[in-house]
Order: sequence, then structure tokens, then C-alpha cells
Amino acid sequence: MTVYEEALDLHKKLRGKLEIKSRVKITSKKDLSLAYTPGVAEPCKKIAENKELVYEYTNKWNTVAVISDGSAVLGLGNIGPLAGLPVMEGKSILFKEFANIDSIPIILATQDENEIIKTVKNIAPSFGGINLEDISAPRCFHIEEALQDIGIPVFHDDQHGTEIVVFAALLNAAKALKKDFRKLKVVISGAGAAGVAVTKALLCVDAGDSPVEDVILCDSKGIIYRGRENLDESKEKISKITNKENRKGSLIDALKDVDVFIGLSKGGLLNKDIVKSMNKDPIIFAMANPTPEILPEEAYAGGAAIVGTGRSDYPNQINNVLAFPGVFRGALDVRAGKITPEMRFAAALALANSIEPTKDKILPEPFEKDYVEKVADAVKQAYKK
Amino acid sequence: MTVYEEALDLHKKLRGKLEIKSRVKITSKKDLSLAYTPGVAEPCKKIAENKELVYEYTNKWNTVAVISDGSAVLGLGNIGPLAGLPVMEGKSILFKEFANIDSIPIILATQDENEIIKTVKNIAPSFGGINLEDISAPRCFHIEEALQDIGIPVFHDDQHGTEIVVFAALLNAAKALKKDFRKLKVVISGAGAAGVAVTKALLCVDAGDSPVEDVILCDSKGIIYRGRENLDESKEKISKITNKENRKGSLIDALKDVDVFIGLSKGGLLNKDIVKSMNKDPIIFAMANPTPEILPEEAYAGGAAIVGTGRSDYPNQINNVLAFPGVFRGALDVRAGKITPEMRFAAALALANSIEPTKDKILPEPFEKDYVEKVADAVKQAYKK
Repeated sequence: MTVYEEALDLHKKLRGKLEIKSRVKITSKKDLSLAYTPGVAEPCKKIAENKELVYEYTNKWNTVAVISDGSAVLGLGNIGPLAGLPVMEGKSILFKEFANIDSIPIILATQDENEIIKTVKNIAPSFGGINLEDISAPRCFHIEEALQDIGIPVFHDDQHGTEIVVFAALLNAAKALKKDFRKLKVVISGAGAAGVAVTKALLCVDAGDSPVEDVILCDSKGIIYRGRENLDESKEKISKITNKENRKGSLIDALKDVDVFIGLSKGGLLNKDIVKSMNKDPIIFAMANPTPEILPEEAYAGGAAIVGTGRSDYPNQINNVLAFPGVFRGALDVRAGKITPEMRFAAALALANSIEPTKDKILPEPFEKDYVEKVADAVKQAYKK
Repeated sequence: MTVYEEALDLHKKLRGKLEIKSRVKITSKKDLSLAYTPGVAEPCKKIAENKELVYEYTNKWNTVAVISDGSAVLGLGNIGPLAGLPVMEGKSILFKEFANIDSIPIILATQDENEIIKTVKNIAPSFGGINLEDISAPRCFHIEEALQDIGIPVFHDDQHGTEIVVFAALLNAAKALKKDFRKLKVVISGAGAAGVAVTKALLCVDAGDSPVEDVILCDSKGIIYRGRENLDESKEKISKITNKENRKGSLIDALKDVDVFIGLSKGGLLNKDIVKSMNKDPIIFAMANPTPEILPEEAYAGGAAIVGTGRSDYPNQINNVLAFPGVFRGALDVRAGKITPEMRFAAALALANSIEPTKDKILPEPFEKDYVEKVADAVKQAYKK
């Protein structure tokens, strides 16, 4: 049985990967009078007098909504909110299992940018934080931006979760190879939410002090360069800070004589000859799911020194689960109003520093859970500054 | 320690009456690959092909949102959404404890009618049903009405939960006293969500075939009669179907020579002399919380034959918890698109018929949970017709 067949069976059997658990036994009139009427009126009154007390008397402090419009689910594209729900439920249980955060999946009946912003604002009082998930670019940039001032952290995991783990992975890959991070020339394939966020992080646009030498970002039409026609707003901005030589052409043209390939696009774009055209001992992160841009065995055959993927069946899995649980744990614990670039940068450093990297292990395994607390602590410290 | 002090302590200690529980253990890469990527892609694809499958592969089928804007919380009034959250969490755990329904509290940052309607529509795909809670009249009528066609049951408990339990309680009180239900003259105090819904139910406006003789509805200004000035839309409509004699005056004037008082208003409005002015052996439901319109001992001193309250420390507690868990259990199990008046009427009959009533026990106790399944079954049957 394949992993897909097995997964379908599991979902059929469970009919829901999560459930609600009452933390109060309700087996008598007395129980009812304390957890519900009339007793419940008392915490209500206290919160009415002092709104901050909602963090003391309810679960708001530990609740994160996973919100999606289903417009960019995994590598499946715009399959709609209902079809995205199994992913959101999955994400919610990872929050619980990795960081003891109570997370609720919310899928939206609209894909309109302004409607999404309004809806999220309207339901925000229920939550301690909001994880936006699988919302397509460029809408995701505006949506996340518009929600930064609602008083609780709003974090688009496809952008910033990916940014944190890829940044950490590249720091450690460079360390394992004794390469100078600041001299790396990087090509990123995929100019969606993740590609743009990783580009900005590696160039330390909003936080950090150790940018790589250069990033060339490619979309499905090839290299993004200054002066290319029909660039959308986000790509136009990116074109101004990337691609120092202003190279033009295809992904293959981009990869000549560079040190790093980061794939956040789709399967099968590279082969070993393309890898051979890169600088010596290149680093290859082929993160398309489920089929990577190039399979590890072929990348190594082309001379790659380190290969990472998004998959759990190869070494060097680069998975967002290494970031979002600790990031939210830290943000919730200090009741941060937002997750700043500085907090994300601190999370990446803490994740990288949580192990001594080797070529075959640039990041911790998801189940070596030490890193969760280290990431959370780093986020808390960065918030306090 | 009072119940209020004890309840506050409980809420402080818990910091949240509910939590999320993962139904999948995530302790290995294999677990991760089935519940999350890459395996989760398979149920996503299947749902994308056939949307109905979302009820098979996710928890949508068993999830009910408890949604409030905090505009009419308990007897506390418009204390706002954050202050209402302890009530919503309480409601959610009752759904779980009484009917094994997974319920999520959602409080809203807006009290604008149209914004609420839009927001609920936008988040509805996540849920199998929606329980509107503690939204003030007359907005609650429009909001519920506007949401009847979204494909999942939307039920405003303050209207229809109350309607079901009061209808059942009055049926059984009449039965215990061997009074003819159809000859009862009823006065209802409180023309909010509950008062209007109970009035319509007792007159069998939308379902049922055994109306009481007459209902006189009173608001804070006294009797609602045809021609009274400044009636809002909902009261104007009600004035046309109630108060056959078109009595005018105060609540006290209304109560002369009638058989039943139903209080859905505020504490301390009645005394024993007012009860004496009613017909012989009157039925008194004094349901204001926490202080009833009249305390049972005083109502009995005035000649009451049966007294019910909303409180758990007196016999004959008339509590919505007798209705909403079974109603939603039934509606979810047949995947009803809405909860019709016929389904609510069937629920009331089933609740009433679940016991042989006596003067001191007109309804089952909340913890005699047999009635939940009976209500659920009746709702399912009424849906199928």
C-alpha cells in the first residue's frame, strides 16, 4: 500500500483528525453551575471590567486558528477550501503535538482579498494567534500585511515558516561545508509566497546582518530581472534587490556558476547536467512536494555536496514543522502583538544552532523536539528587545 | 464560598475550559507522512473531485461553531465579545459532554448585522452546524433568517432552544395538572429573542397543531397591543397574532385572570399578590437568571400550582441544555441543511414525552441523559418527512 492509500484509509477511519476535549467534568448540577450558568457570569463580569482578563479566564491565550481559502494547497493549487480542510486539520494537530497549542482549522467561503481580511479581523477576538495557510501569492502578501495591527500575531506559514527553516538549513549547510555564507550565490525557483519570503530573508531585507552574496529568483517564465515585462507588484519589487548582474534567461541560465539551488516550485525541473554547471560542491534544496525538483540520487550524481528535500524518506528534510510550533509557542507565551522579522530571524538562528550540522544532517529531525523550546525561547527573547 | 466565587476560581485555575485533542498519535516520520504531508494530499484530491467527501474525511460532520457578538450575554446585556467568551466555552463543552459534538467558540469583533451575516457565511465551510448565541433582538431575527440557506443548520439557541424547552415544560405542566393545553391563557414577560420565539411556538405559528388559547406578550413598557406607539418590526408583527382582547396596561394588568406566566425578562417583577390575581392553580415559569421574576417560595405562597425556574437549585429547572445537544446531534446525523420549525416542534414533543410529569418534575434532569437520544431521534424523523 502506498503512503497515499494508507493516508486515505486513515482519514476514512477517523472522520476527523482532531476533536474537542472538555477540561471540566460535567456530571452534576454543581458542575453545570460552575462551568456554565449561573457561575460563569462571574468571569464574564470581570472580563467586562478588564478585557485583559480574557487571557486569564479563557483559552484565548493558547488558541491559534489555522485559516485558509484553499487557493494554494500543498502542490495541488487552487482546489478550494473544503478540499484543503484535511491539510488544515493536520496542521492543527501538529500545533498540539509539537507545542501543546490548541489550534482550530477555519476554511473560508471566499477567495476575495478584502473579504478575507475583514473576516479574519471579525473572528480574531476568539484567538491568541492566527496562522494563515495555503493562500496564493500575491494576495497572501497583502492579506498578511493588512492584518499586522489587529493585536495578535498573524503569521503566514508558507512565507515565514518556510523562510525560517530554509534560512536555518542554508546556514547549517554552509557551516557543514565550511563555506562562507556571505559569499553564497543562490538561485531560487518559485516566486510564490515562499520564494519571495526566502529571498528577502537571505538578503536580510527586514532583519539579520549576514546576507548572502546574491539571489536570483526564477518564476515559471524564467529569471526575474529588472525591465522584464508584466511583472506583478511583488516581483517588480524583488527585481530591484536581486540578480546583481541582471541575468536574463531560463532557470538553467540562472544556475550556471552559482552555489545554491532552492526549489520551491514543482517537480522534475533539474537534472544532473544542470547541477554540474553550478559551482563546485553545490547545495541543492529541492523542496517541491511530493516530487522534488531533482531527486537526491541524481543531484549527488551531478556533484551536489548537500541535498535537502521536503520529504521524510530522505535525509535532510526541510519541513516547516521545525518552525511554526516553536514560533507560536514563544509568541503566545509573551503575548506578542505580532511576530516581527527580528523574531523570525532569531527563530532561524536558534533552529540552526540547535544541532552541530553534518552533510547528512543539517537540521534536527522533527521528533527530536528539543529545538521547539529553543526556538520558542529565542522568539521570546527577540520580542522583549 | 458562593457559586460565583467558586466559578471564578475554577476559571482562573483552568485558563480555558476546553482544549484540542489530536486523534492521531504523531510520534514518527511515518505518522507525519500519513496525517500530514505527503499522504494528506490524497483525501484533499478526493474532496476536490467530490465535495461531499469532506463529510467523510474530516471532522466537519461533527463540528458546531458557537458564535456570539456578546451583545446579550446571559442577563448581563451588551458586555461585548471578549466578556462573553466564558459562556461560549461553556456552551461548547456542554455540546461535547451531552452529545459528543465537537464545538468551537467564535466571538466576533463586530455587532453590525450585515457584517455578522457575511462573516458567518465566510467561515461556514469549516462546520457541520452553527449555534448563534447571545445576540440581541431584533438583530438576531434577521441574522438567523439570512443564514437559513447556507446549507448547514443555523440555530439561534436563545430563540429556538428556549422555545423547545418552554414548550415541552408547558405541555408537561398542563399534563401534570390535568389542564387542557389548548385553553391556557399565557402571559410572557420579555419580548427579546426568547420571548418572541416562545410566543410563536405556543401559538403554533410555524409548526404544531395544538396552540394555546392566547398569549399576551409584555416588554419593559408593558403589554404589547395593536396600535401601541413605536413598536419595532418584530413587536408590530407579534401584536397582530397575540392579545385577542387587545388588553393595554402593565404586566400586572396582563396577569389578571390568566393561567400561565412565563418570565424571560428580569428578576423581581412579581410578588405573591400578583400571582393571586391570576386564575386558579397558575403555572409560573420564572426564568430570569440568576434572579427569577419571582422566587418559587413566594409564587407558591400566592397559590401557584407549578413553579419552574432557570436555576439548578430549585425543582423544575427549565434549561436549554435539555434541547440543543439533541437537536444538533439529530441534525448532524442526517446532515440536515437546516433545522425547520417541524424539527423543533418534534424535539419539544420528544423532550416532553421523555418522562411522565409530576408537579415537581415537569422535565427530565439534565443528567438523566436518555432524553438526548430521544430528542435527536425525533429531529431525524421530522427531517426525513
